[in-house]
Amino acid sequence: MNVLHLVIAESSLETVPKEIADHPIIQRDAWRRRRDPSKIILDRSRHHEAMTRLEDSHKRGRPDIVYLTLQVTQYTPLNVIGMLRTYIHTINDYLIYIKPQTRIPHNYNNFIGLFEQLFEIGRVPPQGEPLIWLERGKIRTLLDKIRPDIVFLLDDVKGRESSFREFATRLLTYDEPCIIVGGFPHGSFSEDTYSIANEIVRLGKHRYTTLVITAKLLTHIESILNIE
Amino acid sequence: MNVLHLVIAESSLETVPKEIADHPIIQRDAWRRRRDPSKIILDRSRHHEAMTRLEDSHKRGRPDIVYLTLQVTQYTPLNVIGMLRTYIHTINDYLIYIKPQTRIPHNYNNFIGLFEQLFEIGRVPPQGEPLIWLERGKIRTLLDKIRPDIVFLLDDVKGRESSFREFATRLLTYDEPCIIVGGFPHGSFSEDTYSIANEIVRLGKHRYTTLVITAKLLTHIESILNIE
Repeated sequence: MNVLHLVIAESSLETVPKEIADHPIIQRDAWRRRRDPSKIILDRSRHHEAMTRLEDSHKRGRPDIVYLTLQVTQYTPLNVIGMLRTYIHTINDYLIYIKPQTRIPHNYNNFIGLFEQLFEIGRVPPQGEPLIWLERGKIRTLLDKIRPDIVFLLDDVKGRESSFREFATRLLTYDEPCIIVGGFPHGSFSEDTYSIANEIVRLGKHRYTTLVITAKLLTHIESILNIE
Repeated sequence: MNVLHLVIAESSLETVPKEIADHPIIQRDAWRRRRDPSKIILDRSRHHEAMTRLEDSHKRGRPDIVYLTLQVTQYTPLNVIGMLRTYIHTINDYLIYIKPQTRIPHNYNNFIGLFEQLFEIGRVPPQGEPLIWLERGKIRTLLDKIRPDIVFLLDDVKGRESSFREFATRLLTYDEPCIIVGGFPHGSFSEDTYSIANEIVRLGKHRYTTLVITAKLLTHIESILNIE
């Protein structure tokens, strides 16, 4: 393996949608943080009451999933030695690119502040070489750009069962494989996401959070490569 | 192995110390959250300016380390099948006990709210069977209570190098081993902590965050036990 591409897909990460920006809960939170209501990141832990009228509400307002997963991907040996590329695809079809050397804030509220800046001006930092940037696009757009050898979707609903070790060993036989994990809390992937996978895999015997499944898979890869 | 005891030691988790409770930064944050200044959890991302006059300031105000580590320990198979016990020892010598079935909030701010409640009333939830509770004590007090077969301290400064796989294999030969990891960002363990370890181990070739080292070690244990 030369590079592993990891896509956190349909991520529950977005700014407050227009249709609920006037809700008192959102207005109060925006005022408290001195921001425009449409520029704050939707967060179920604060905006739950305002979210009831949203479509697909159960898949939204969980930016903690991306945040937690990045705490592993950005600080794991595979990334440190430059063999990992992590991308975020959001539920509203934004694509977010993160340079491997980017130190994602360990503190959640700092992460939220950083990503609000990203959604507002499209890149971080505002000047100089960008470390994180954002564009409109579907996962397909991203795959057309990175052109991986094969695309695996990790899904415990439709996937064929495999052990972590077995799957990690198989991954390493490809030069540039791509793995897609879900960045949302409940429900299943969209048909669109299923349709771009060459293979759907269910890792292990349990249901895992995205953080845990990512940490486990990367550990097995790093263990086999002897780079831990 | 029957049970693995995991202690997150000298954790950077405490309520605002008296000597800075009157600082305008703290007062403002407490007022905003409608809490008593001495009852909010010290957080460098918000209280940095107020923290300069604190002793050992570099080891304090990082509750995100415990929060992130619990996102792995509470949701990993070893815990799900009841073979893991996680404890928090804090920099001010509190001991926090967490029942294995406790679902720690995925959202950081909800975690902070929960632990503020814990520091205020000593247990969570306030009524009924406690899931998390707190008492005064040093790591030694905890070890006297759980009586592990052996105590390993994970420390990349003074530890003898071992691979993750090798160490996990060794751990499994004990019935009730105990592992101590650091719950603070910089610096080294106190002499007190060094003195209670039977063995000091440095895992892997890199320096890891507490989240990553915990996830990796647990993955190796679960992989060998074939419970992933």
